[in-house]
Amino acid sequence: MASSTTALVITIATIAAFHFSSPSHAADFCIADLKGAQGPAGYSCKNPANVTVNDFVFAGLGVAGNTSNTINAAVTPAFSTQFPGLNGLGLSLARVDIAPGGVIPFHIHPAASEVFHVLQGKVISGLVDASNKVYLTTLKKGDIMVFPRGLLHFQVNSGKSTAIIIASFSGAEPGLQLIDYALFANELPSELLEKSTFLDHVQVKKLKGVFGGSG
Amino acid sequence: MASSTTALVITIATIAAFHFSSPSHAADFCIADLKGAQGPAGYSCKNPANVTVNDFVFAGLGVAGNTSNTINAAVTPAFSTQFPGLNGLGLSLARVDIAPGGVIPFHIHPAASEVFHVLQGKVISGLVDASNKVYLTTLKKGDIMVFPRGLLHFQVNSGKSTAIIIASFSGAEPGLQLIDYALFANELPSELLEKSTFLDHVQVKKLKGVFGGSG
Amino acid sequence: MASSTTALVITIATIAAFHFSSPSHAADFCIADLKGAQGPAGYSCKNPANVTVNDFVFAGLGVAGNTSNTINAAVTPAFSTQFPGLNGLGLSLARVDIAPGGVIPFHIHPAASEVFHVLQGKVISGLVDASNKVYLTTLKKGDIMVFPRGLLHFQVNSGKSTAIIIASFSGAEPGLQLIDYALFANELPSELLEKSTFLDHVQVKKLKGVFGGSG
Amino acid sequence: MASSTTALVITIATIAAFHFSSPSHAADFCIADLKGAQGPAGYSCKNPANVTVNDFVFAGLGVAGNTSNTINAAVTPAFSTQFPGLNGLGLSLARVDIAPGGVIPFHIHPAASEVFHVLQGKVISGLVDASNKVYLTTLKKGDIMVFPRGLLHFQVNSGKSTAIIIASFSGAEPGLQLIDYALFANELPSELLEKSTFLDHVQVKKLKGVFGGSG
Amino acid sequence: MASSTTALVITIATIAAFHFSSPSHAADFCIADLKGAQGPAGYSCKNPANVTVNDFVFAGLGVAGNTSNTINAAVTPAFSTQFPGLNGLGLSLARVDIAPGGVIPFHIHPAASEVFHVLQGKVISGLVDASNKVYLTTLKKGDIMVFPRGLLHFQVNSGKSTAIIIASFSGAEPGLQLIDYALFANELPSELLEKSTFLDHVQVKKLKGVFGGSG
Amino acid sequence: MASSTTALVITIATIAAFHFSSPSHAADFCIADLKGAQGPAGYSCKNPANVTVNDFVFAGLGVAGNTSNTINAAVTPAFSTQFPGLNGLGLSLARVDIAPGGVIPFHIHPAASEVFHVLQGKVISGLVDASNKVYLTTLKKGDIMVFPRGLLHFQVNSGKSTAIIIASFSGAEPGLQLIDYALFANELPSELLEKSTFLDHVQVKKLKGVFGGSG
Repeated sequence: MASSTTALVITIATIAAFHFSSPSHAADFCIADLKGAQGPAGYSCKNPANVTVNDFVFAGLGVAGNTSNTINAAVTPAFSTQFPGLNGLGLSLARVDIAPGGVIPFHIHPAASEVFHVLQGKVISGLVDASNKVYLTTLKKGDIMVFPRGLLHFQVNSGKSTAIIIASFSGAEPGLQLIDYALFANELPSELLEKSTFLDHVQVKKLKGVFGGSG
Repeated sequence: MASSTTALVITIATIAAFHFSSPSHAADFCIADLKGAQGPAGYSCKNPANVTVNDFVFAGLGVAGNTSNTINAAVTPAFSTQFPGLNGLGLSLARVDIAPGGVIPFHIHPAASEVFHVLQGKVISGLVDASNKVYLTTLKKGDIMVFPRGLLHFQVNSGKSTAIIIASFSGAEPGLQLIDYALFANELPSELLEKSTFLDHVQVKKLKGVFGGSG
Repeated sequence: MASSTTALVITIATIAAFHFSSPSHAADFCIADLKGAQGPAGYSCKNPANVTVNDFVFAGLGVAGNTSNTINAAVTPAFSTQFPGLNGLGLSLARVDIAPGGVIPFHIHPAASEVFHVLQGKVISGLVDASNKVYLTTLKKGDIMVFPRGLLHFQVNSGKSTAIIIASFSGAEPGLQLIDYALFANELPSELLEKSTFLDHVQVKKLKGVFGGSG
Repeated sequence: MASSTTALVITIATIAAFHFSSPSHAADFCIADLKGAQGPAGYSCKNPANVTVNDFVFAGLGVAGNTSNTINAAVTPAFSTQFPGLNGLGLSLARVDIAPGGVIPFHIHPAASEVFHVLQGKVISGLVDASNKVYLTTLKKGDIMVFPRGLLHFQVNSGKSTAIIIASFSGAEPGLQLIDYALFANELPSELLEKSTFLDHVQVKKLKGVFGGSG
Repeated sequence: MASSTTALVITIATIAAFHFSSPSHAADFCIADLKGAQGPAGYSCKNPANVTVNDFVFAGLGVAGNTSNTINAAVTPAFSTQFPGLNGLGLSLARVDIAPGGVIPFHIHPAASEVFHVLQGKVISGLVDASNKVYLTTLKKGDIMVFPRGLLHFQVNSGKSTAIIIASFSGAEPGLQLIDYALFANELPSELLEKSTFLDHVQVKKLKGVFGGSG
Repeated sequence: MASSTTALVITIATIAAFHFSSPSHAADFCIADLKGAQGPAGYSCKNPANVTVNDFVFAGLGVAGNTSNTINAAVTPAFSTQFPGLNGLGLSLARVDIAPGGVIPFHIHPAASEVFHVLQGKVISGLVDASNKVYLTTLKKGDIMVFPRGLLHFQVNSGKSTAIIIASFSGAEPGLQLIDYALFANELPSELLEKSTFLDHVQVKKLKGVFGGSG
């Protein structure tokens, strides 16, 4: 080791050079430039010279979602679109609030697996695998449950107070497709919808009314 | 170039050695050993010394599926479980037969994107994205349509003869989750099912009857 | 469940908000913007607001390729460049027409595995692995064969009519490198080509003539 | 739609067959068999026939860790080794308890990015990127911060009560390498350690004492 | 900081527990168990309790290969089969010795990109892309050239002494398919080989003789 | 085979068309456009029409680095920022020069595994895994050692002459985080640094002096 003080003169230029003189450290992270081009791997990167600690922090999950709606529940996402620091890192969160009597109806996340962590309340949680087998349980505070990517699942508040859950996802944009909204909140013609779901005409018309669809 | 004949004496031992003396060429492919252990990346590999051309060939898609059933349609998979040569290669096929009046009801593939190629017949095909927007069209012989992974889609035979389709998938085990079967072909309690789908009690009971569920 | 009609007033704003108010659903798919920048993961995405069902459909594989050429065969690709809906989805197709006597000469796909599906005709198909072992068979209508990525293979029409094949690939841009074209259809100096292939000078000159090369 | 009741006779055998008659639905998930072989992609899969809802649930994060130790903090992992349901899904969690005055010293996760979510308390959190730039902030309840994979970071409880944090990781086995433990909790010879860290001999000997190392 | 000595009592059990009491640190690396099962992601892992520094070190590249053969060159691989420490890490090396007049004939690596680094000597190096464009240059000591995965390339010693090259690959089992060996070192029938390469009968027979094939 | 000369008229338009008439062959490689947008997968691609052989070649590793600095060592990277041909290919190199008495202090590469190949000299090399186990050895000319991604390691020249090493990485931008520089070459407040490293105040101040930090 260079043990004399004089040997320790600071001449770090060589080693440091390839850190500071090039944009290569952008590879450590890629804060989303929400106005830039998107590609299959995510958003373009913000210029690393302009990145501050605020790009790595998001405060939106501390606020309860508004559950005064059809499902008496709310989902507050912290995906890369809301929290650009997640871009390209294969990870995101969402806060889920479910009021008493509320439900997150059957849904899938097209692009990620999920771990569902109950912070408060009591939640009945169901998962169906591709052999149509049901996995059903009641989760209490501190419990976590995993939903493998692309498989149908739902949650129902089975307690007397609002349940609060943090969902973690294995992708920066996991997506969310709620069956009810996918079927009934658009203009897919009723006849085709009935044909492709085996639901009765009256049922389809009623739920198109509930979820705002037409056709 | 070694231009004299004598220089061309066959002494390929050095180059050839690392092909033949080690199991390393297994890395070119990994034929599934269906009786071996499975891991997250697929089945264990069959010993390459025992691999023959038959491991790379599958004849099952040449036979029409039996469409005498609830949906008047059949799906014949060539996934890695049926066709072990696909193991680890990120690719699989399935043959779809849809009789006149038949339907492949709303479904998702949890683990792959799909290209749907109509070989015969006329098919109405619908896709719903995660913003609940519907993409609807009629496909005829020769048309292909892509369904990005994890998004809901359905197909209906809109012609007068059986439609034949080849589906290609971006995974060796794409999975298939038909909404009707996931909801109605198991013992999920009706009350929870109604709560998590907004369907009426009578509708749920009727479809549990159709698809063989209970509860 | 919200069982009274009044509770079912449509107040879906909360849940729907993160679908509609942000570009996040672009993550479901990424239709190629062929005029935008390309990156290692593919093309930039078309603005999802402008995406229609036509972006998910491609009709080009219904038309026979022109086989009046050196190899008496034609390859009609549906890669992401021809069918932008495939961008980023790890999947593509191609139609292969091989006239009687025609051949798809020895070739590799640098970036994907392939499943080769004979729709019509009879095809001799050969695969060579990295230990130089040959896998040879004759495929008839309905048969599929897999060619693991990067390994040499070829096909020869062994029937009396044109063979039609659909090739599926585990990548949106699988690439195609035909050995004859790679060696003989460019200006690589003959001396180097002879040195690096062990082919004779006369043979090299003849095939440069056939495939349009010089040098 | 098959509208008559007689048409709805339950003949689901064809469609259902490839779900139930083969092990293919194992591809939906791969619960770790902790006694089976491990490979680069994770543990071998438990036989899907024996999987129950308990394989998808883990209760260990509801219990506070014991912070009576050198760092006055505790990390309770829910990685695939503790929670086998995560195997192969690219996602895991950990609970972090930091007593007043406690610290999670500088560390990296070799194999995953992290989102750090403060459930209770106040935490100073610092991240250093590969250009040696520091990103420093104080997080309060509800805040989340992302640490891109492989970059050094630390946390210090800056409040008066125990801080509780849930860390989410983009891998089922993110790993954890605490600099102090890596340097001082083993038998790496002091002379080499001094040489490779520029730390003084007295400092090295003192910290080897604190963290249980020798040499 | 806990500044008093008494506070520094070594009670690291909590933090250390999840390192030492579980096999989870296997996730840091996965030394190949060459006698265990292989899967699509590589070999099974050696028990981490038995891993020593020798598992991370390989000495075989220090020895010159034997170039007394048809191509006057030798390839000495350090792939995961030879160097089990590379298993699952997406990286490998090989040493290439090319005697004066020697050649590494046209070849591809099915499963990896390559960086070719000349340590000694002068080498003509050629690459052909999938549009059949040739990239040709002469490399001298210290030069590196990249060959993207799956594309044909070759090297010729253009100097007067043996050239020594280290090839680095983006995969633990990159594979190697030399065109001459794939075509001429097996029993593929000459008639099919001629048909699928456009080579003349005499040429095929001659090279089958050189490379040890039959048929 | 088309055996008559007249049949060999060059009509390669069909096959060649999809190579030459579209930008699809860009998928073979993606030379970095250093002035274009970056995304999570790397730089945008240079227009393939403008790519020449020079884009695939880099000469910078033939020149010794300047070791007259604090660590008596130098790292000369050939990452995608220096060598744009590597963009998207998952591979890069660096040259390491270590003068007698020099050291590459403890460091990690956040985004890649490394193979360290000693071309000249004698080097003590140490690796610490996530269970804090040390793997220590002395490498001589020709030896290679692997450092799995994200794990701490260091090297010390233990010979009498300059050691020359080529490091290969499993990523185009592996990153480099030297512990000393990350801790002491920035403005992280000393109090926090002491708290998060357990180092003494005097030690921290001294090393901030050596490595150019403040605070």
